[in-house]
Amino acid sequence: MTEDKMLNTEQQRYLEELSDLLRIPSVSTLSQNRGDVRTAAHWVADDLTRSGIENVRLIETEGPQGHPLVYGDWLHAEGQPTILIYGHYDVQPPDPLNEWKTPPFEPSLRDGNLFARGAADDKGQLFCHLKSVERLMKEDGKLPVNVRFLIEGEEEVGGEGIEYYVKKHPKELASDAVLISDGHMFADGLPTLDVGLRGMVYTEITVRGAAHDLHSGLYGGVAPNAINVLCYIVSKLKDLDGTIQVPGFYDDVAEVTAEERSQWAKLPFNEDEMREHEIGAKALTGEPGYSALERTWARPTLDANGIIGGFTGEGAKTVIAAIAKCKVSMRLVPNQQPKKIEAAFRQYVENLCPPYAEVNVEYIHGADPVLLPTDTPFMKAAMEALKEVFGKDTVLLRSGGSIPIVSLFDNVLNAPCVLMGFGLPDDNLHAPNEKMKLDNVFKGIDASARYLRLLGKD
Amino acid sequence: MTEDKMLNTEQQRYLEELSDLLRIPSVSTLSQNRGDVRTAAHWVADDLTRSGIENVRLIETEGPQGHPLVYGDWLHAEGQPTILIYGHYDVQPPDPLNEWKTPPFEPSLRDGNLFARGAADDKGQLFCHLKSVERLMKEDGKLPVNVRFLIEGEEEVGGEGIEYYVKKHPKELASDAVLISDGHMFADGLPTLDVGLRGMVYTEITVRGAAHDLHSGLYGGVAPNAINVLCYIVSKLKDLDGTIQVPGFYDDVAEVTAEERSQWAKLPFNEDEMREHEIGAKALTGEPGYSALERTWARPTLDANGIIGGFTGEGAKTVIAAIAKCKVSMRLVPNQQPKKIEAAFRQYVENLCPPYAEVNVEYIHGADPVLLPTDTPFMKAAMEALKEVFGKDTVLLRSGGSIPIVSLFDNVLNAPCVLMGFGLPDDNLHAPNEKMKLDNVFKGIDASARYLRLLGKD
Repeated sequence: MTEDKMLNTEQQRYLEELSDLLRIPSVSTLSQNRGDVRTAAHWVADDLTRSGIENVRLIETEGPQGHPLVYGDWLHAEGQPTILIYGHYDVQPPDPLNEWKTPPFEPSLRDGNLFARGAADDKGQLFCHLKSVERLMKEDGKLPVNVRFLIEGEEEVGGEGIEYYVKKHPKELASDAVLISDGHMFADGLPTLDVGLRGMVYTEITVRGAAHDLHSGLYGGVAPNAINVLCYIVSKLKDLDGTIQVPGFYDDVAEVTAEERSQWAKLPFNEDEMREHEIGAKALTGEPGYSALERTWARPTLDANGIIGGFTGEGAKTVIAAIAKCKVSMRLVPNQQPKKIEAAFRQYVENLCPPYAEVNVEYIHGADPVLLPTDTPFMKAAMEALKEVFGKDTVLLRSGGSIPIVSLFDNVLNAPCVLMGFGLPDDNLHAPNEKMKLDNVFKGIDASARYLRLLGKD
Repeated sequence: MTEDKMLNTEQQRYLEELSDLLRIPSVSTLSQNRGDVRTAAHWVADDLTRSGIENVRLIETEGPQGHPLVYGDWLHAEGQPTILIYGHYDVQPPDPLNEWKTPPFEPSLRDGNLFARGAADDKGQLFCHLKSVERLMKEDGKLPVNVRFLIEGEEEVGGEGIEYYVKKHPKELASDAVLISDGHMFADGLPTLDVGLRGMVYTEITVRGAAHDLHSGLYGGVAPNAINVLCYIVSKLKDLDGTIQVPGFYDDVAEVTAEERSQWAKLPFNEDEMREHEIGAKALTGEPGYSALERTWARPTLDANGIIGGFTGEGAKTVIAAIAKCKVSMRLVPNQQPKKIEAAFRQYVENLCPPYAEVNVEYIHGADPVLLPTDTPFMKAAMEALKEVFGKDTVLLRSGGSIPIVSLFDNVLNAPCVLMGFGLPDDNLHAPNEKMKLDNVFKGIDASARYLRLLGKD
C-alpha cells in the first residue's frame, strides 16, 4: 500500500479499521466459516461499544443458520426521532477464487478502490454508519437523534433470523425511520436514493405425465411427455415481447408518474451500453412503450429461473420424462399483491395443463413491492445531506430487485426506510474482485453524520 | 434349482450351458468388466468351434469401447442362400442391484423363467441360434444353408465397432438375409415377426440469451431469458395432441395399409391396460384418428428427452439463465429421410428464435426407418417355421423403436433382416429381474433349426 500515504490521519485510521473487518471471512452460507461469522459480529459489537453506544449485545436467532444479530442503542435525545440503522456483517462466498487479482480476505487498495469480499456488500457501507456515530459522539458527547443499530449476519442466506426477531419484538425496536446503506449510486458522483423496490412471487411448476420414465421408441405417440407439457405451459406465461399473459396480472399495476418518467429520462443512461457491456445480448427484450429503466424499475416481469427434466447428460437417451420442473418468478410493482398474483398464476397454470398430465404450483416465497413516500422529513433530510456531501442534486429512482427487509420494517415497525447507497454499479457484488471506492466510504461517513444532524435540528 | 428335474437330458444341458454364459458379467459400458466382456466373446467363439463352425475368430473393433466381434462361418451348402446370424453377447449394467430377487449373474430358474442379466437381451436369444446350428451339424454333419455368425459386444453402448467393420468389409460378409433374435413376441405363445422399425433423428437445441447469467431483479424486463425462449421453441414443435408442426414433416410419411390396420386391430391389446399398467398416466396422448398401436408403430413422433437451464437446486435463486438446452428426438417412419427431416427441423427452429436470442441445433444421431418386405422367401420361411413350432399363425407387426443395425445390414449388405424375437413383453429388459421364459429358449432353438431347414429345401 502506497496510496494510503495520501490519506489524512483519520482516513488512514478508517482504512485500517475497515480492513480489519474485511479480513474476517464471515461467509454466512459456509459452515466452516461459522466461527468467523461470529468474530465479525463481535467486531461490530465492540466497535459500537467503543463509540459509546449502549445496550450492545449479540442476539441469537432462530433461523436455520443461527448467526447472531448485533443490537445497540443510544436513546437520550429526548423529543427527537429514533432512527434504526440496519446493515449486515456477513458476506457472499468468494468463489471462484482464481479470478481474484488479490485474495478476497486480504484487502488491497488500488486506484482509490479497496478490493475485498464484502467491501461494498455490506461491510464498507455498514462501516459508514459505525464511524458516523463514533464521530458525532466524539464531537458532541451525544447524538442529535435517538439511534438503534440492528445488524444481521444472514443477509446473504435469506435473512430468516432477523425476520423472526423483528416480528416478535416490534416494541423493543420501535423507531420512526430506518436507514439502510446496502445499495449503490446510479453513477459515480451522483447522489441517489432508492424509493422503489419490486416485489416478488417465486414459484416452482412441476408437471407429471407418466408414472415413470418411458422409452420413447415403445411409447412415443401415446405417453404424455412432462417436458413438452411444461414447455407449453411456460411458453404461455408471457409473449416474446415480455407481456405477461396471466389473466388480471396487470390489474393493480400503478403506472409510472410523468414526473418519474421525465426524471429518469434525464439520467446518464444508455440502453445500448447496457445491452453490450452488462447483458451481452443481440438485443434487449421487454414490453413495447417503456424505456429500459422503466421496464426494470417500474414494470412487473416474469422469468423462468431454472428448468430440469429427463436426460441431461452427454449424448442421447431416448427417454420420455415422467416429471419436469421449472422455477418461475415474477417481479411485482406497486400496487400488486403477491398473494393475489400467486392465486391468478396458479389458476392460469392449472388451466393450461392438458388433461393427460398433472401440474402442481409450489409457492416458494414472496415479497411486497415497495414505493417509499418522498415527502417525509426523513427522505428530505437524506436528499439534503447527500446533496451537501456530493455537491449535486440527489436523484430519486427505483430498483428492480427486492429487499424483503424494507417491507418488514415498513409493515412491522411502521418505519419507512431511507435507502442511501454509497456503492457504485461496478462494485462486483457477489463476484470476484468486489471493491468499494474508498472516497465513497469517507463521503458515506460524512453523509450519514450530516443526515443524523439534519434530523436532529427540528 | 428343483424345476430342472422336469427337463429332459438335452434341455438340462441347454440350461447348464446358457447359465454358464449368463454367469459372465459382460457389461460393455463398465471398464471394470472389460475382461469379462472378452471372456463372453471367447465363450461364444468356443461354442461355435465345438459345433463345427469354421473360421471362428475374434475381430478387434475400432469403436471407443473396443470390444471384439465374434465371427464364424460355414459355407459349404452350394447353391443355397447365405444367412448372417447376428446377436450380441454384451449386457446392460445390473443396477439397481438391491431390486434383484436373486443376484443378476447367478442364473435362477423360477416358475419356468430363467432370471439373470442378459437372459433375454440377448444371450438367451443368441443361444437359440448357437444351439440350432449345433443340432443341425450333429444330425446331418452339415448345414442346410450357408451361415455366417457376426456377434457383437457393444450393442448396449452404441454398436459403433460393428458399424465400422460392416462398412469396411461388405464382401467378406456377403449374405442373402440376416437373422436376428433380439426382440420379443407380442404376447406369450403368439409367434411374431417385426417387419417395421421407426427411424430416428436425435438433436439438441441450445438457446443463448445474454452473455452470462444475470440477476432477475436488475435485468428482468430487458434481458433475454434463454429458458423462456427455449420453452417457446419447444412448445411450437408439436401441438398438445402430438401433431408435429415442423413444415413438411409429414410429406413423405407412408400411410399404414388397410391390411396392417385390420391385422393390428385383431391383436390382443387393450389401450386402457397399457395406459394404466405400463404408462400410469391419466390419459394417453397422440394424433387423433390413429389407434395406440398405429401411433407407436407407424406414425412419426417427437419428444423432448431432456431439458436443463438456470438454477435447478433446492429453493430459489433469482437468475436469468444465459443458456438453456433441450434434447429433442423424432421417431421416423417410412419413407421419411433423417437428413431431410433434420434440415426441416433445423430451419423451423431457427425461424422460431426471436431476434434477441441465438439458437443452435446439434444433430446427435439418426437412423433410417425400416419396413421389411414380407413377400420374400426368408420372411415366408420364418412365418412358417414359427407357426409350426408355436402352433399358431405368425403375426406381422412393427416396433416403435429403432435398431440401427437393421438399416446397416440392409444398406451395406443389401440383406433384408428377419426379426424373430423369442422374448416376452414382461422380460424386464434393462431393468432388475430380467428373465427369459425357458420354454421359449427351447422353442427358439426349434424355430431357428426349422427356419434354416426350410430355407435349404428349395
